[in-house]
Amino acid sequence: MTEFILDQRLKNDCFVLYESEQFLVLLMNNCLVPWFILVPKTTKTELYELDEVTQTAIQAKINQISCFIKTEYKVDKLNVAAIGNVVSQMHIHIIGRYKTDAYWPDVVWGASEKEEYRMENVEQIRLQLQTILEL
Amino acid sequence: MTEFILDQRLKNDCFVLYESEQFLVLLMNNCLVPWFILVPKTTKTELYELDEVTQTAIQAKINQISCFIKTEYKVDKLNVAAIGNVVSQMHIHIIGRYKTDAYWPDVVWGASEKEEYRMENVEQIRLQLQTILEL
Repeated sequence: MTEFILDQRLKNDCFVLYESEQFLVLLMNNCLVPWFILVPKTTKTELYELDEVTQTAIQAKINQISCFIKTEYKVDKLNVAAIGNVVSQMHIHIIGRYKTDAYWPDVVWGASEKEEYRMENVEQIRLQLQTILEL
Repeated sequence: MTEFILDQRLKNDCFVLYESEQFLVLLMNNCLVPWFILVPKTTKTELYELDEVTQTAIQAKINQISCFIKTEYKVDKLNVAAIGNVVSQMHIHIIGRYKTDAYWPDVVWGASEKEEYRMENVEQIRLQLQTILEL
């Protein structure tokens, strides 16, 4: 099995919170919104190209992260998206949105405003998420 | 069973291409990119709130539409997204993107540039898509 290499731009912009055999879960280093990224370990770039078992496994992880964001952050809406125009390595954004956040009602992509996390907050999120993902 | 009512803003911005018991498929009236919208007939607003059977059915439709866009339009990338900040009625964007399109590499949401379809083109797309969706 070839080693999976995370795209350098994702590595630069995010913290790796979790890694399993099939996935990585990242946290975008922007505390203005709870912004998670699921990276399935695949070389395919489009979701429809994956087999049904893999699609179902991805959906299950999206569900867990969605539920985590909704419960933990009490957000008003979730934005779930596979875009990949800049970074083609498959990655799915799962973002919690508030009607009062810095970008609402616009999408978060392309906005220049951002604020970096404090390290202790990242560690706290990592611990919380890990508990959910290992259920 | 309560009648499903399509959100008025989606109705204004899109053509209804297809309707089944479970779904509507819309075409955004902007011929600058092939932009389809899948509307599951549900009152839930987040994908993770749906049961597994419904999620699988939605994924199957997304796959069909994705494959249709990729094959028919020879696009460079697909953008698949459930956002709903403005229209909370659940709807999933499935958009074909070219490295040469009007918005690339940005996302399409929030951009002001657009160009309306000619009716004969909409009818042609409706016929093509219908064949795919009824497979």
